[in-house]
Order: sequence, then structure tokens, then C-alpha cells
Amino acid sequence: MKGLLITFEGIEGVGKTTQVQRAFDLLEAEHPGRVVVTREPGGTRAGEAIREIMLQSGAAYIDGMTEMLLVFAARRQHLRELIEPALQAGKIVLCDRFTDATFAYQGGGRGVPEQHIERLQDMVQDGLRPHLTLLFDAPVETGLARLRARKDLDRMETEAVNFFRQVRAKYLELAARHPDRIHVIDANADIETVSAAVRTILAGHKLC
Amino acid sequence: MKGLLITFEGIEGVGKTTQVQRAFDLLEAEHPGRVVVTREPGGTRAGEAIREIMLQSGAAYIDGMTEMLLVFAARRQHLRELIEPALQAGKIVLCDRFTDATFAYQGGGRGVPEQHIERLQDMVQDGLRPHLTLLFDAPVETGLARLRARKDLDRMETEAVNFFRQVRAKYLELAARHPDRIHVIDANADIETVSAAVRTILAGHKLC
Repeated sequence: MKGLLITFEGIEGVGKTTQVQRAFDLLEAEHPGRVVVTREPGGTRAGEAIREIMLQSGAAYIDGMTEMLLVFAARRQHLRELIEPALQAGKIVLCDRFTDATFAYQGGGRGVPEQHIERLQDMVQDGLRPHLTLLFDAPVETGLARLRARKDLDRMETEAVNFFRQVRAKYLELAARHPDRIHVIDANADIETVSAAVRTILAGHKLC
Repeated sequence: MKGLLITFEGIEGVGKTTQVQRAFDLLEAEHPGRVVVTREPGGTRAGEAIREIMLQSGAAYIDGMTEMLLVFAARRQHLRELIEPALQAGKIVLCDRFTDATFAYQGGGRGVPEQHIERLQDMVQDGLRPHLTLLFDAPVETGLARLRARKDLDRMETEAVNFFRQVRAKYLELAARHPDRIHVIDANADIETVSAAVRTILAGHKLC
């Protein structure tokens, strides 16, 4: 495959989605018509419907492994319909969350055994891994405070804080495990400082 | 687990759903309040939403492995929410399609490698297998002719016939592989003869 898959990871409220958009603008200026933005779960009709099931189930009980299987179902369709054809066509695909999020959320957060996630990763992705991953890291309190400023978060109680702590810890563990692929960016800094860090990493990969 | 899981399998148009209902009436008369009827994919709120995605996608392209992952996501939730608690409570669970259908449809029909389905089966079901399976078997032409009498089937072309042939062949292969669990019933016979065959098998298991 001639293209590049760049994934953006991090817990809620770290400014990830803003940085995806800024990276798009930066890369598109250098590589016009070659940059694609997408997200997980989602990115396809079936994927967005799957995302809807997961969001709706926020209130009701949903098993951690069910959630993992739904995420990988959406990912398989996403790969087949969008990501693989884009990479074949030489595009730079910017994906808001990918398999690291499954390890962090369903693994670290929900307790699904890591070997199950690894097995699905091998089955679904046929060896495809992101070429580069930007992990936006900030204390859970920072992320939640930013979210609170944006919308009402009454549902977020102590359990949620502990959940996001586990997710963040797993993200940092993954970064330590894959230092060549995953770059940790301090998302506690102001937005321009974070953008500058993203630009430095992309420039280091000769992408801008 | 004190209960029993009895699954009903077969291609479209073999009269499976009617026989599930008749088996329920028969068993409920012997074991009042102990019999539960359910179906796959479905059986839970998340499962029915997943079923909807699969049906909607009939027109659009959906990858075979995506379909398999969706089926197992629905199954995991079904097991956790409904089947396992029912079995723990000593119920007799009659399930309209279960994992044999995944081997037959996604494996035989869609070409998903069997070892992937086996791996998911182990991961999702924690060793649980049906205690008894009734496979309603008839030539594909019989099933399709019965369906045509019920509803408009213009969408069913030659590909569909070949698809159902592959599904039927895989079902019969599974029955040959698990002769103690899977009982093949000739669904080409009239409805009363089929019901009598079901009764004989249930009586053989001392269930009626």
C-alpha cells in the first residue's frame, strides 16, 4: 500500500478532534487532494449505525466483549470500504481513534483480556497497523473539566473518573510498548503549543 | 448450569419458526413456566438493533467478516442478558438459530474461514454449546418455493440459490461432524410429519 495511516488517540476532552482538523489543513496544503479524515467507530454507513448502538447503550447494560466485537465489526467495514482503498490510492488517512482505543477503552477500561483484542486485531486487520499515532495525553481531571465547560456532564460520576484513569494508563502503557509508532503529546498545554508539537512530529516524518 | 439450550437451524423456508412455536407448546405443557423462546441475531435490545443493521445492509455491500463480528456481538449480549441467566434458572431455552448458523451462513455462504468462527465461538461462549440442535433440512428449491408463496422474492436470483446451496451443504457437514448433538429432520415432508419427528427427538431426550 502506498498511503499512510495516521491515528489520533486520547481520552475525552484532550482536544483530539481539533488537532485532527488542524493536521488535515496542514497536510492538505502540502499534499492537495491526498488527505482523508475519518473516525472510529464509524466512517461507513454500517459503522455509524454501530456507533449509534454503542452510544444508545450508554444507559443500558452492555457487555465489554460485546462492545469490543461491535468496534471490530465497524473497523472491518471501515477498512474494506474506506481505509484500504484510500491507502491503495496513495492517500494520507487521518483516523480519529483506531485499535489503540480498543486496547485502552475495552481492554484497560472495561477489562476485556488483551489477548482477545490482539486476536481480533490480527483477524480483522490482516497485518495493517498505523504508520504513526499521535497520543494526546492529559490528566483525566483536565479532560473532564474541559468537557464540563462544553456540555452538561451530570452522568459523569466517580466511576467515570476511575474508568478514564484506567483508559489513560493503558494508552501510556501502549506508548511505552510502541515507542517508534506512538508519539505522546502533552495535551495539558494550550492549543497552539499542542498544534506546534503535532507539526514538529509531522515534519519529523517529512510530511510537512 | 441446570437448564437446557435447544437450537433450531436450517435455511430459509424450511418451516423452522413454526416448529419452534410447536416445540414451545409441547414442552411448556410438560414443563410449565420453564420454557423460553428466543432468536438470533436478536433476543436483546442491542441484538435487535444489530439484526436491523444486517437486514438494512442487504442492498449495500457488507463484508463477510463484518457480518460474523456483528453476529457474535449480538450473541455475546444475548448470552449475558438472556441465555445464561435462563440456563442458571433451570429454563429450557429454544433458540431460533445459533452458532451453527454462523458456520453455515458466514462460513459456508460468505466464505469466512472456519478457524476464525471457531476462535470467536471459544472467546464469546466460554465453552457453552447447545445441548441439542434440530436441523430442518430440505432442498434449496423447496425452501425458496415456500418463501415465494409467502412473499415477493424478485431479489432472489441465481446467486442466492447458489448461496443457499452452500449454506445447506455446510449445515449437513456440521451435522455429520456432531452426530450426537445435531439431529437432521427432513423438512421436505408435510408440516405434521415434521412436527412428529420433532416430538420423537424431544421424547428421546425425555423432554416430553
